[in-house]
Amino acid sequence: MENNTTPQQLLIKMALMAWDTANTRFVKLANGLTDAELAAEIAPGKNTGTYLLGHLIAVSDAMLPLLDLGHPLYPQLQEPFLRNPDKTGQPMPPVTELKTYLTAVNAALAAGMQAFTPAQWLERHTAVPEAEFAAEPHRNKLNIVINRTGHLHYHLGQMALLK
Amino acid sequence: MENNTTPQQLLIKMALMAWDTANTRFVKLANGLTDAELAAEIAPGKNTGTYLLGHLIAVSDAMLPLLDLGHPLYPQLQEPFLRNPDKTGQPMPPVTELKTYLTAVNAALAAGMQAFTPAQWLERHTAVPEAEFAAEPHRNKLNIVINRTGHLHYHLGQMALLK
Repeated sequence: MENNTTPQQLLIKMALMAWDTANTRFVKLANGLTDAELAAEIAPGKNTGTYLLGHLIAVSDAMLPLLDLGHPLYPQLQEPFLRNPDKTGQPMPPVTELKTYLTAVNAALAAGMQAFTPAQWLERHTAVPEAEFAAEPHRNKLNIVINRTGHLHYHLGQMALLK
Repeated sequence: MENNTTPQQLLIKMALMAWDTANTRFVKLANGLTDAELAAEIAPGKNTGTYLLGHLIAVSDAMLPLLDLGHPLYPQLQEPFLRNPDKTGQPMPPVTELKTYLTAVNAALAAGMQAFTPAQWLERHTAVPEAEFAAEPHRNKLNIVINRTGHLHYHLGQMALLK
């Protein structure tokens, strides 16, 4: 890191490093699990690995509009993986297809995120109204990344049980 | 939040809010699980809830020296919950005792953490040598909190399976 980094740049970098660490771990875990391993439940009666894989891709995809980086790439994931729980008979894409979606969503996110200036990271995310943002400036774009990092770790701990 | 908050203060607040959210959720989950529920494995052949409870308390307790806030309160947790995996015959304190440790560790952490200035949060944590810190200023005290927030979420997702 260059010595002229400001505290603001450093703090943003730390949050983005945490996201990258969790997301890299997720991609590695997902790609290392076979279709059969993903089809299993993480614990008896709980979510399947396939559902969690689709859920995490859908949540990452939904970060694109929240960060004002465009529409979700795969809005068809929202019905089976965000609006409905597992095992409700929703049609799901094959796992091999989900894995290609994961790569594409991460590429779109990374391209958009690396272009943000420190000031842009502190702008409101698109789901918070301007009037509320004035009083709650923590509801900014970087906070989306921070919260999604936690969400990713939460389900990563569960998907790790499939190995 | 006051309008004269600096970006640095805001970014630190966001990281601390994420920690608090995860930790509050952990305390609520832990205290809501009975001894019998905690004694169960999170999934067949995996860690027990009791082990994860002790592990998370030990990791939080170990934050005290990393943040230069003093010695761990319960160093006796390190052998059974940090240095050894579950089910290796290590003696463990009763769950009711673990829960009182959790309260005490969180109180000590909160008291120390709320006294840090923004500049102190960006000081090196005690496990990184000064020479390395000059080149890697992200290895500061706040980064300990950010990383431990991810770790907490990871095991929280697993402990949630016990309900």
